[in-house]
Amino acid sequence: MTMPSADVTEVTAMNAGLYEAVEAGDLDRLGTIWADDALAATVSCVHPGWPRLEGRDEVLRSWAVIMANTPYIQFFLTDVEVQVTGDVAVLTCAENILTSVGEEDDDDSSRLAGGRVVATKVFRRTPRGWRLWLHHGSPVLAPSDSDDEEGADDA
Amino acid sequence: MTMPSADVTEVTAMNAGLYEAVEAGDLDRLGTIWADDALAATVSCVHPGWPRLEGRDEVLRSWAVIMANTPYIQFFLTDVEVQVTGDVAVLTCAENILTSVGEEDDDDSSRLAGGRVVATKVFRRTPRGWRLWLHHGSPVLAPSDSDDEEGADDA
Repeated sequence: MTMPSADVTEVTAMNAGLYEAVEAGDLDRLGTIWADDALAATVSCVHPGWPRLEGRDEVLRSWAVIMANTPYIQFFLTDVEVQVTGDVAVLTCAENILTSVGEEDDDDSSRLAGGRVVATKVFRRTPRGWRLWLHHGSPVLAPSDSDDEEGADDA
Repeated sequence: MTMPSADVTEVTAMNAGLYEAVEAGDLDRLGTIWADDALAATVSCVHPGWPRLEGRDEVLRSWAVIMANTPYIQFFLTDVEVQVTGDVAVLTCAENILTSVGEEDDDDSSRLAGGRVVATKVFRRTPRGWRLWLHHGSPVLAPSDSDDEEGADDA
């Protein structure tokens, strides 16, 4: 295997930063990760089970609402892969999520729920470095360790 | 508005061809749409609710299984948008799906079900023209005509 390129390293770090920002509820940091300026209008995001949101303002607002309603969340990323083609980088990964359920003032820390999401991201090379331009996350409803086609009833 | 570029026109037609092929159960045509050769190993596909499948053979096999288990399916595409950057095209759309439920030999044509999927696709420019390299479809579980953040409980 060859060493990852500087582009792959930067995109991978920015992807990790996205999840750190969500875990920390840090909207300012999220704002530095998502594309701005000429790309702001075409930024788009699909949260698991949601329709597509478009435009930087609408996307950041959705993350603010999610973070405000999520007292605790932690991501364990697996299967991170990055492919760079010119000024576009496509990153795919699985989000293994541990999150709290119940009320924010509930002291029972054992009330945690797990979930698995597959994510596709597109980063764009900008004058200020790589920025996240598209995020698409979707729930994995089938058994995550099953690679066969059981349950195939949709396209 | 400006006229769409030749690239946008070609990618849009190839995307429509994907759905026509699925409607017709035409695996050969599907094979001409998905990337091959040097890109075959990194082709990837997420069906709604599924984990990611990787590699041209595995992806085409999954479509074969889906088509074999789907007596009738029809797609109505909306919100089709294409952005071309160098040799990469990102297409997003909504799939409004009409499909049959029940057994294949069931004559009751009124047994149809609807569904809505949001899809993100990445096409790559190859020596043989644009080819589909990544497809990510996910179910829209929230009301499709609601753009607000109700039901936000996931990331």
